[in-house]
This record gives sequence, structure tokens and C-alpha cells, in this order.
Amino acid sequence: MAILDTINSPADLKRMPVGLLPDLAAELRKLIIETCAKNGGHLAPSLGVVELTIALHRVFSTPDDKIVWDVGHQAYAHKLLTGRHDRFATLRQLDGISGFPKRDESPHDSFDVGHASTSISAATGFAAGRDLAGRKNKVLAVIGDGSMTGGMAYEAMNHAGHMNRDMIVILNDNEMSIAENVGALSNFLTRTGSSEFVYRFKKNVESFLGRMDTVGKDLLHLAKKLEDSFKVFFTPGMLFEAFGFEYIGPIDGHDLPMLMETLEKVKKYHDAVLIHVLTKKGKGYKPAEANPALFHGVGPFDVKTGKVLKGKGGAASYTAVFGATLCKLATDDDRIIGLTAAMPDGTGLVPFSKQFPDRFFDVGIAEQHGVTFAAGLAAEGLRPVFTVYSSFLQRAYDLVFHDVCLQNLPVTFALDRAGVVGNDGPTHHGALDISYLRHLPNMTLMAPKDENELQHMLATAINLGGPAALRYPRGNGLGVALDQIIEPLPIGCAELLREGTDAAVLALGSMVQPALEACQQLERSGGPRLTVINARFVKPLDQALIMLMARKYGCLITLEENVLQGGFGSAVLELLEEQQLTGIRVLRLGYPDNQIPQGDQKEQRAMLGLDVAGITASIKEFLEKSLPFSHEESVRR
Amino acid sequence: MAILDTINSPADLKRMPVGLLPDLAAELRKLIIETCAKNGGHLAPSLGVVELTIALHRVFSTPDDKIVWDVGHQAYAHKLLTGRHDRFATLRQLDGISGFPKRDESPHDSFDVGHASTSISAATGFAAGRDLAGRKNKVLAVIGDGSMTGGMAYEAMNHAGHMNRDMIVILNDNEMSIAENVGALSNFLTRTGSSEFVYRFKKNVESFLGRMDTVGKDLLHLAKKLEDSFKVFFTPGMLFEAFGFEYIGPIDGHDLPMLMETLEKVKKYHDAVLIHVLTKKGKGYKPAEANPALFHGVGPFDVKTGKVLKGKGGAASYTAVFGATLCKLATDDDRIIGLTAAMPDGTGLVPFSKQFPDRFFDVGIAEQHGVTFAAGLAAEGLRPVFTVYSSFLQRAYDLVFHDVCLQNLPVTFALDRAGVVGNDGPTHHGALDISYLRHLPNMTLMAPKDENELQHMLATAINLGGPAALRYPRGNGLGVALDQIIEPLPIGCAELLREGTDAAVLALGSMVQPALEACQQLERSGGPRLTVINARFVKPLDQALIMLMARKYGCLITLEENVLQGGFGSAVLELLEEQQLTGIRVLRLGYPDNQIPQGDQKEQRAMLGLDVAGITASIKEFLEKSLPFSHEESVRR
Repeated sequence: MAILDTINSPADLKRMPVGLLPDLAAELRKLIIETCAKNGGHLAPSLGVVELTIALHRVFSTPDDKIVWDVGHQAYAHKLLTGRHDRFATLRQLDGISGFPKRDESPHDSFDVGHASTSISAATGFAAGRDLAGRKNKVLAVIGDGSMTGGMAYEAMNHAGHMNRDMIVILNDNEMSIAENVGALSNFLTRTGSSEFVYRFKKNVESFLGRMDTVGKDLLHLAKKLEDSFKVFFTPGMLFEAFGFEYIGPIDGHDLPMLMETLEKVKKYHDAVLIHVLTKKGKGYKPAEANPALFHGVGPFDVKTGKVLKGKGGAASYTAVFGATLCKLATDDDRIIGLTAAMPDGTGLVPFSKQFPDRFFDVGIAEQHGVTFAAGLAAEGLRPVFTVYSSFLQRAYDLVFHDVCLQNLPVTFALDRAGVVGNDGPTHHGALDISYLRHLPNMTLMAPKDENELQHMLATAINLGGPAALRYPRGNGLGVALDQIIEPLPIGCAELLREGTDAAVLALGSMVQPALEACQQLERSGGPRLTVINARFVKPLDQALIMLMARKYGCLITLEENVLQGGFGSAVLELLEEQQLTGIRVLRLGYPDNQIPQGDQKEQRAMLGLDVAGITASIKEFLEKSLPFSHEESVRR
Repeated sequence: MAILDTINSPADLKRMPVGLLPDLAAELRKLIIETCAKNGGHLAPSLGVVELTIALHRVFSTPDDKIVWDVGHQAYAHKLLTGRHDRFATLRQLDGISGFPKRDESPHDSFDVGHASTSISAATGFAAGRDLAGRKNKVLAVIGDGSMTGGMAYEAMNHAGHMNRDMIVILNDNEMSIAENVGALSNFLTRTGSSEFVYRFKKNVESFLGRMDTVGKDLLHLAKKLEDSFKVFFTPGMLFEAFGFEYIGPIDGHDLPMLMETLEKVKKYHDAVLIHVLTKKGKGYKPAEANPALFHGVGPFDVKTGKVLKGKGGAASYTAVFGATLCKLATDDDRIIGLTAAMPDGTGLVPFSKQFPDRFFDVGIAEQHGVTFAAGLAAEGLRPVFTVYSSFLQRAYDLVFHDVCLQNLPVTFALDRAGVVGNDGPTHHGALDISYLRHLPNMTLMAPKDENELQHMLATAINLGGPAALRYPRGNGLGVALDQIIEPLPIGCAELLREGTDAAVLALGSMVQPALEACQQLERSGGPRLTVINARFVKPLDQALIMLMARKYGCLITLEENVLQGGFGSAVLELLEEQQLTGIRVLRLGYPDNQIPQGDQKEQRAMLGLDVAGITASIKEFLEKSLPFSHEESVRR
């Protein structure tokens, strides 16, 4: 890494001879590939913008100039060029550097990101703030064509184009979001055939007009207009100019001299400008170029072969079981529709999309539309299943309420990645869904204890006749056998898994298995003997069973992978209050009210005290504290 | 109402001689004006689409054909033509017909609405569902140009244009959202000057080409292309065609024959078509035409003069005090920025916008962009105050989390219309904000007991240095004196208002005054003597004071205008659990887990048991039940 070692800041990059830049690009790629091969990461997006990143830091000067990276998973080269070269080996690891821009990490990271389509809005804020302060710095947003399917990017374009502030939007067009892009816009951006037609047509008109003696000034003017109008009609510029942006492009995003020249030119403008840059996702690494969806966000892999290294292996993932179950159910029920927001791979919907192409819809990175589109389908008598990461459904909270729950429409939300997600960190944890869904009217909310129960819960949700959500974690299931016959569960019924004598543990979803193990450990070590309940339903709660447990033991422990504010444990507290049962000791275990750092899921659960050891210790401490009291005296019926 | 009396369904309308339609339009207008004058309502939007509604029901056949009205506040004529004429006098009243389409109310209402920008998504769902079932009905979305600033409309256009289903979007372009429209798009739609230019230019080209003898087939073809391209370049069609929609218009939305002819023609298409219709908001009622923002949603008024009838009068509204306070604070602190999403009037920001035009931003109906734009401003060192109805901030939940709270940026959310909102009903109540904001990291969440405290809370929020939200109700304040010196409150400190002996009432915001009155009544009638706490903060709670009250009385009553699931009362339950204080009896009063019907606010609070009488009764019953027990035996410290 001879060249990279000499770059500790963008200033070093600016001093470097232009001739060395291609070698620098090669070094950046090598390091990004090698690091992702070890740590996993968003390889393909970051490889695609190596030249663009070099050009940006040659021409602009962060931190004075602001670069807002949309989503931020493409910012690895940016991190390497802004003083984080020495720590890059810790990418995405516990206490290491983040896989996304973080203001806490570097002044060169102007804005935290993680979710899609926010960059133009933030950049508009930076530009307006700069203008109020009378500063002269430049503001840039770098946004992928996938993120451009997200509605708020248009909201921002509309506002920014109207104000016409000095700002630059770079459309990083790789014809992909996470999977292959969908939507009218993507067809439109890739009308490559038509640009050749424009070229030929313009030539024809020029020569035609050139041959005419009678052509006066007006007609030359006419010709210019004609040319302009055709440029607009046949290029993507048309769309962006409609929003008030000056359009430049498309230009080759791997042609460094061209990129630098264009950026230098645009730097002199003081209007809202959009530069359309064409890049190749995975550029410079053959396996990633060949399969950019796989290498979008990838686990550890072998650099030579490009083969992804399998983890512990064995059990199928929750995602895979979900996908297979949906196919099974859809075979017998043609009302079932599969929906994703640009993530057919991540959500396990690829088999469904192949088996039921007419009943599969990828709406693009557009969770809001996805939810209301599903509501429309449900109002037509269908049973849509919107499959989405827990953290990404946050984007559509209002529509879940307004279009699905208020109308009591039978839409199923299959929430993948509920709980900690590992190395993507705070923006991506599915830490809030219980708290943001539990208070919506008509909602039924569930979490399966294992991948077999997931099958039955999916059938439960689809057959419910109203809004339903089921949440399940990232990663492998427990390796349990899968029932061949899939049947709906009784609504609001929990499952008694283990009977003890001293207290009851109410465990939800992914916490059921560790709860069982913790209780076994406690008993083996001569500690208390605990009852374990698989709660299954957050809403409606199994009121009868929970009340019975409360009265019997006077002591309940709730376990969930969700923030404690407004979560499952709070639902239990609310039930006790509603039933006016006082004197019950409750311990709620779950996520604290702050960010959960990146790391692997095991590390995160350990840190949160939600692994077997942590749960065991917490229960032990809790029950020891309560020993001086016997519960009977304070239980009120 | 001679004509209207003969119309009990759209079939009756279809049988009517065309010559009678203008008279019908006049009757519809008269009835809409008279009813709104009595009941209040969305007068101006509904007056604008009278001819369009007649044309739609002449040409299409609901309920087989589906019409999805965006927002739905313009659907009064639709209601009158679809069998609800006899009940129209109950518009927006308790047990009356809704001010918005409701599937429960009529089969002609295909989809419930209330919030903006959802109609194209729902219609796309209807179209996809119809195609799967092999039906042939038509699907239409009627969306205002204001709603087109909402991002999910683009998400929907992108998806629908790509699929190119048989569907019709009617763009109801009145150059207004609620206030005057903002954004690049609105400029673009109103480029009326340019269309004349196009006309002249086309004529010139035609005559030029017509004079040329050498013009062959190719050149005629060229001329056609030229014409097409110019049509696209200079008209709004350009934008919609970029999304894959066939564009038709603009046409005069008050020209009934033209509307019917166009709809008949388009009915034969089987593609995604957008018809651009120009209407006048408030059409046919002079005062509303002159001031469409005032008559957008209006309370009772005098039909003759157009003068809005003042209610009880007296005390200033929370909204007005908020607006005046923001101006006061901004005079001394030039970091303060005022932000609205298309509602400068409704949120009280008009004075601010006039006094500080450079520091005022109306982002359009675009709450998501608004929040992240504010985050960008905050990252630049400013102190943005995003002023928004509680129910509309739901649209931006993910951005409040992702861009403001995770980054701990100093953005203030001023949530107007928290609690029940009256006649707009279920879609508009601010019933959820405590539950959807309380679990977000770094958030400070407050509610003032009166308009004077609102002043101090706004200063508290702005000076906090992190995310803060304050929620206050629709309607007049209590009429208390306003302190001249505005000072931040100590964070997380509640206020002891009244000391009793038997139990403590923890009341939040709008519930403080009724709580005081209820406690006075109880005491006067020889009942228990209660302590009353003005909670002020939902997050962070005043832990010390609440714990003191719990230990002292063993009995707490919480009061809030928010759903009980995950609300303020739940925060109190969570605190008791965290502190492991058991044996405390708690009664939580707030909203139930279902829809709160339309009506006036007083009726709604009475229905919910949250008026003085209801609170008094609930507390009485609760405390009587607890009498057999003395709390000391079960309190654990």
C-alpha cells in the first residue's frame, strides 16, 4: 500500500501527481476487497465509486465542503482517504470504524446515514444553513439510482430545485439498488439506445439547416432550441430539470480525468446542479461485477475464488424458512401476494418470485408506497405479505397506521432482522418495531420461538383477516424439525414450555431458547426453579395465562429483543395495571434506551446481557433480592 | 334541491339530461356551502371539484370502478351523488357522515383516506388486484397538486408507470396545497407563459416547413417529432411521461362537456394515464375563491358575508401563542429557524414567516424531507423548529429516529393538534405521538399545562442541544396571563400543584386543568384529598418526585391525551419496575386501543371519560375499590 500510506488527509491527495491516481485507485480497491473478505461489508457499492471518491476529494475540500453520502455503504474509499487508513482493518467490528459515515468518527463525515434517500434533504439543510451564515463552502449529495426510488428524494429535489441553492447532487447510476432496479425511472435512465438516435438526428438537422441559404438568425436559434429540446426529451435530464436542477451528464464514473474536469467546472456554478455519473457496481473485482447483488452486502469470502465462506452452517436461516413457507402457503391460497422493497434476496423472496411471478411485486426502495399498495391489494380481497427489515418498515409507520390498521385490512408484515443485526450497527437494528406497532389499532403482533413456529405464525397472520406482523431475527434458526402441516395458531395464546415453582419467565421470540437454557442452568446450580412461557403474541397478550402466572408466583420476568420503552415487557406491566393486580414483582429485560454499537450479534447480545450468561445472572440477582419477601402478602386479586 | 332530490345513486345521475348538469352543479355547491357554514368543513377543496365529480360519476361506475380520493377532503360532491344526500346535514358530526371517504360508510368509497399522497399507491394496488382476478373495471386516483409534493406519490408513479397497468391518475391542479403551493414542481405546472410560446413556435415551424418544396416524408416526420418534443419540453407532461404515464391536458376542470369528453376517451385506454385538470379552489363561492387558504378547512361561517363565526372567543389558541413565542425567541436568537410542511396558517407560523422570511421554510407536504432538512440545518449549528400536526409527523417517524435522534441533533418538534382534534376524526387525532416518540434515543418529550407554560417549554426545547418535542392541543388556551420573560424549565422536573393526603394524580399537558378540577370536586363532595402533579416531561420523567409520590401514597393516577399503549402512564409503570417498587396501585387514564370517532373535542373527551366528570368518576371508583387495602403493607422500598 505504498501510495495509500502517504495519504493521511485529503490535502495529501491533492498534492499527489495526477499520474499516480490510477495506482491509488487500484490500492484502494485491493484494500477494500481484502478487508471485506475478512470482515464482510458493502463491497460492491464501495468498489463502484473509487474513482468518484478520488475525484471528489481532489476537487472539493472536506470538512469545509460537505459531502453527504446517501445510505453511506459506499463510503469506504472516502474513509481511507480521510485519515482512517490505519484503522480500516477494524471496519464494522466492535469498537472499530463504522461501515457508514459517522460524525463522531471524523469531521470529514458530515452527516450520519444508513437508511436510503436522505442525502438530498440533509444537503439542502447544509446549503440553507451555509447561506444564512454567509459562508461559501460547497455542499454535495451522492445518491444512487436505487435511492432515487425513495419518495423523500423527490420531496428534497422539489424543495431544493425551488430554492435553487448552490448545491450539487451526484446521481451515482449503477442501474442497481440492492437488487436489480425496478421502476419507470430506471428504464428511463437506461434509454441508451435513444441517445444514439439523438446524436444522429441532431447531425441530420444540422446538415439540413446548414445546406439552406435562406436560413437566418431565427432559424439558427430554432435549431439550437430543437437540439436542446431533444437533448432533454431523450435524456434523463428531463426529469431533473423539471425539478429545477441543472443537469449534466451522463459521464463515465470510472474515467478519473473526465470526473475531475466535470467537478472542477461544476464547482464554479452557484445553482442546484445534478451530475449523472455512470458506474459499475463491484468495479474491479470480477466476482462482484458478475454478481453485484450477492456482493452488495457480503459476509467473509475467499478473495481468490470469490466464494462466500459459510458460517457455522447447519440450520437454515429464518429468512430461508420464511421464503419457503410463503411458497408452500401460496400454492394452496392464490390470494397470497409477496411484496418487497428492493430486497428480494435479503428477505428470502427469490423462490416466491420465481414460483409466482404474477403475484410477486418489488416496489423498489419505497416502503411507504409498498405498504399502501399492499392495502389496496388487500381491499381487493388479496392477502399481501410485505416482507421487510424491521428497521426499514420504520419509514412507513404512518401508512401502516393510516392505510392498513385504521381500515383493518388483512396485510401481513413479515419483519426480518428484528433485534440486533450485527455489524451494520445502530441505524439497522430492528430494535423498535414492538414499540412502534403495538399501539396501532387492530394490529396483531407475534414473534416465533424458532423457525418451525415461524411457519405456523405466517399462516396465522395471513389467515387472520386483519393487520398482522411477525418479527424474527437475522441469522440461523435453531435447527429444529419443520412440521409438514402448517396450521394457524390460536390467537393470543402463549405456550407453557417448562414448569417451575419460583417465578415465571415470559420470553418472546428469539429470547425463548436462551431463557430455557438460563433456567436450566439456574436449576442445575441449585438455584430457583422457573416456569418458562413462550409468549408468542405481543398483541393480543395471553392475558389469562399471564395473570395466572402473576398470581401463582407473584414474580414475572419478561425477555425481549426490543427497546424496553413501550415494548413487550411494558405490555405486561400495562396488563397488570388494567387488571388492577398489584404487588407483583416484574423484571423486564431488553434493550436500553440508547444506541447499540456495531459488532457481531453474539457480542451485542452479551453486551446487553441478553445471552444465556447475562440472562442467568440478571434473573439470579433479581430473585435473590426478592427473597426477603414472600409474594403472597402483596398479591391482590 | 329539486334535482339533487332525484339522485339516489350514480345511476340516477347517468340517466339525467346533460342540460340539467349545470343546475345540478349549482345545487351541489349550494348544499356544500350551507352545510359547511353550519358544521365547518373542507369547503374550498370540495367546491373545486364539483364538475369533475359529476363528470367522473357520469362516465365511470362506482363501486365496480374504483375512485380513490387523495386526502379525501374534496369528496363532498361525491358523497352527495352516491346516496348520502339525506344524511349530509350530519357531515363531520358525532354519529354523522365522515368528512372523508370511509369504506364503512358506502361501497362507493373504495378506500379510506385523510393523510396526503396515498391515492396513487392504493389505486396501483386496486389495479394489480383487478388484473390478477381478470376483472375489467377501471381504477382512478384523484390527487391534488399539493399532494404531489409528498414523496410517496412519486414512489407510486415510479412503480405504476413501470407496470403500466390500466389506471387513471387525475391531477387536480389548483395551484394550492393547503396554503399556496411551494416547490419546483408547482412553478413548473404553472408555466403558462411558455405554452403560448410553444403554440407560436409550432406555428412558425409548420409554416416554415410548409413553404419548403423539398420537404419529403422524413422531414414531415421530423416536424412531428419536433412538435411532440416541444409539447413535452414545455408542458408538465414531461415529468409524468418520464415516469411512464401517458399525459393528457391541461384541461379546464370546470368545463363539464370537455371533462366528460376527455374521460370518455381515456376510458378506452388500457395504459397508465395522467389527466391534468385545472380547477379553482373554492370555485363558485366568492369568499372562498378570494381566500382559499382560510376556506380550506373552515369552522362555521356566515354564508352571506363569508365571515367566520368566532367560537367561545376569549383565550388565544395554543397555536397563536406558539407562533408569537417563536417570534419572540427568534428575535434574540438568530439560530432559530421556522419550518412547516405546507401549513403556515394551521401551525401559527405566518407571523414568523413575515418577520423572519430568510429563516422560514415551507417544504410543502413533505414531512420526511422536512425532518431531515431540519437535521441538516441543525448539523450546521442552527436550531430548527419543525412545526407540524402530531398526526402528520407520523409520516416522518423514521427520519426523526434516523436523522435527528441517532445523531442527537438539536431539532425541536412543535406538535400541534396533540390529542383529539374533533371533527376530522380518526385519521387526524394526535393520539400516538407519545408512544412513537418516547422510545427514541436522546429524545426529550414535553407537554405544557397551559399556554404560558408552552412559552417556557418552547424555550426549553430550543436551548436543549438535542432532539426535543413538545405537544399541545388543538383549540384555545386556558386564558392565563403570559409571562413576559421566557425561560427554559429545568429538564425532567415536574410541578407540584396541589397537595392532598390520599393519592397522587400525575397529569400531562391538557389533562392538568381537568385533573385539578376533578380533584376539587372530589374534595368538595367529601371524597378523597388528592395531590396533583403537572408532569411536564414524559421523557425524562421526574423520577424523584414520582417515586416520592408512589412511596407516600402507594397509589398513583396518570392522565394523558394519548393511547394507553406505550404512553405516559406506561412510562410511569416502567419507572416503578426499574426502581423495583412493587405494591403501588396505578390507574392509567388515556385513549383506548381503537378509533376515536369524529365529533367535537368536548364530545370526544366526554366519550373517553377524559372530561372533568369522567375523570372524577374514574378516580372515585378506583379509590373506592382500593379502600379495603391499606397500601403500606405492600409498598416495598
